Amino acid sequence: MNTVLNSKPILYLGIDGGGSKCKARVTDEHHQVLGTAVAGPANASNNFDLSLASITESAEMAMVDAGFKKTDLANVIAGIGLAGVNLPGAYKAMSEWQHPFARMFLTTDLHIACLGAHGGEQGAVIIAGTGSCGCLYTDNKTAIYGGHGFPYGDKGSGAWMGLQALQTILLAGDGLVEPTLLTEKIERQLNASGLSMVETMVGASPRQYGKLAPLVLEAAQQGDAAATAIIKDGASYISAMARKLLDDKPARFSMLGGLSEKLIPWMDDDIIPQISAPLDQPDAGAIYFAESSLKAQQ
Amino acid sequence: MNTVLNSKPILYLGIDGGGSKCKARVTDEHHQVLGTAVAGPANASNNFDLSLASITESAEMAMVDAGFKKTDLANVIAGIGLAGVNLPGAYKAMSEWQHPFARMFLTTDLHIACLGAHGGEQGAVIIAGTGSCGCLYTDNKTAIYGGHGFPYGDKGSGAWMGLQALQTILLAGDGLVEPTLLTEKIERQLNASGLSMVETMVGASPRQYGKLAPLVLEAAQQGDAAATAIIKDGASYISAMARKLLDDKPARFSMLGGLSEKLIPWMDDDIIPQISAPLDQPDAGAIYFAESSLKAQQ
Repeated sequence: MNTVLNSKPILYLGIDGGGSKCKARVTDEHHQVLGTAVAGPANASNNFDLSLASITESAEMAMVDAGFKKTDLANVIAGIGLAGVNLPGAYKAMSEWQHPFARMFLTTDLHIACLGAHGGEQGAVIIAGTGSCGCLYTDNKTAIYGGHGFPYGDKGSGAWMGLQALQTILLAGDGLVEPTLLTEKIERQLNASGLSMVETMVGASPRQYGKLAPLVLEAAQQGDAAATAIIKDGASYISAMARKLLDDKPARFSMLGGLSEKLIPWMDDDIIPQISAPLDQPDAGAIYFAESSLKAQQ
Repeated sequence: MNTVLNSKPILYLGIDGGGSKCKARVTDEHHQVLGTAVAGPANASNNFDLSLASITESAEMAMVDAGFKKTDLANVIAGIGLAGVNLPGAYKAMSEWQHPFARMFLTTDLHIACLGAHGGEQGAVIIAGTGSCGCLYTDNKTAIYGGHGFPYGDKGSGAWMGLQALQTILLAGDGLVEPTLLTEKIERQLNASGLSMVETMVGASPRQYGKLAPLVLEAAQQGDAAATAIIKDGASYISAMARKLLDDKPARFSMLGGLSEKLIPWMDDDIIPQISAPLDQPDAGAIYFAESSLKAQQ
């Protein structure tokens, strides 16, 4: 299954490492997918060691899936797009990793998502899932908005919606704001109420908060005022971010992430028609990144 | 130094166990303070084992300070007011502790703060420090508002202010809200800027967020719009909580906690004249609690 170029096999590994899972694909130089795999969380700033383990595991499994040995990783050109390496400390630590690949090119999960969405070309994307952020890559400019993390950033994201919802139902429980449909929905999902519900959420992760987001969207669709206010506030922020990205005239703009489809109808009318469907996955973007980084060095 | 009643020495231990420290006092039955001590954090729901260790350490040190042996704890009537035991799981676990005292009476840190503030009598208090909450103890009613914890509760608290401030300067950094004085102040205090600042605050504790609160108050006093909006939003919530407490006609109402003095001027005009100065400390309230609980059982 090896692809040979000038009698030397060229294999690419694309890694899309996020906060909840790490996806890997192995391709030849024609972008033909030879093997894929998924491993655990890989956010480099949340848990660096776990990130290394997930990258390694997914890479090895993808190689085996492609019919190679794990040790053949020594021959691959790896493009690694990783959550958390937007923070300088995590980027430095990951760059210094004694990796098992022939070459490693490291960038953010945002960058590979953007490259994937636009088929390896430049453009802009907003990712709205557990977290939220926007990024733009053009000849003249690279820009990243948001993506700062939970609980201080990621407005409009699933985790942010869940946090807003929990804040609201606690205030409602004290009679300090109007009652809301969110109370019953969240109590049912957490299988707890009042202080037991709080106990369930002590130290909860962004993902756990994000699991409350569908309830907020559901309550907003049912006309609940508190839920509607949360969604409108979040969508208004995402629209403002989109407007900033579009100011720089990207060739294409896409919305990605598990929440984007449900969020788009709440976004501003001037933004919605400018959203293009994504063309490919972030792990394909990681391959594009490895390929262009290698070319740039040759 | 032992006090003897019916040829049996009666010693009281009062424990005020909070999220950052645990205060202990030993008194005789006339509330005469014989010894005091301070140990580490004691929030029972944040870290149960640490809470037990801090209670034990502060109790033993207060006994030694009073001229007794540590083992004399076996003779004391302990009143323990503890952060975190408002959550049912933590209350149950703490109640089942094989404690070293003759008797242990357990209640919340709120309850002993309220008893202390009103000299052992009933009333209402709002505590605004790292966290925020209000409570009321009258013959007819016990009520607790807020105090749910960070990041979903404790609006108007120091931790809440710090989180709002960080959220705001991240949005300002992206050009998505107006520039604010908070940016420079917080960057200076954290000795970091932009993404490095975010890295500093990854997984930050409520106390770390609370350390940003004085900067918000300072910026608001300098007329900064974003900081003023944060303080007004927080003070408005605290005023609404005060109004709910005052609805039940407590004999006295006090504001406690490290932030209360600075917050009071921002509170609603109808509330401010109804605030009475606190009479005594929470660890004195723990002694009142032990005393009345013992009497109720006799």
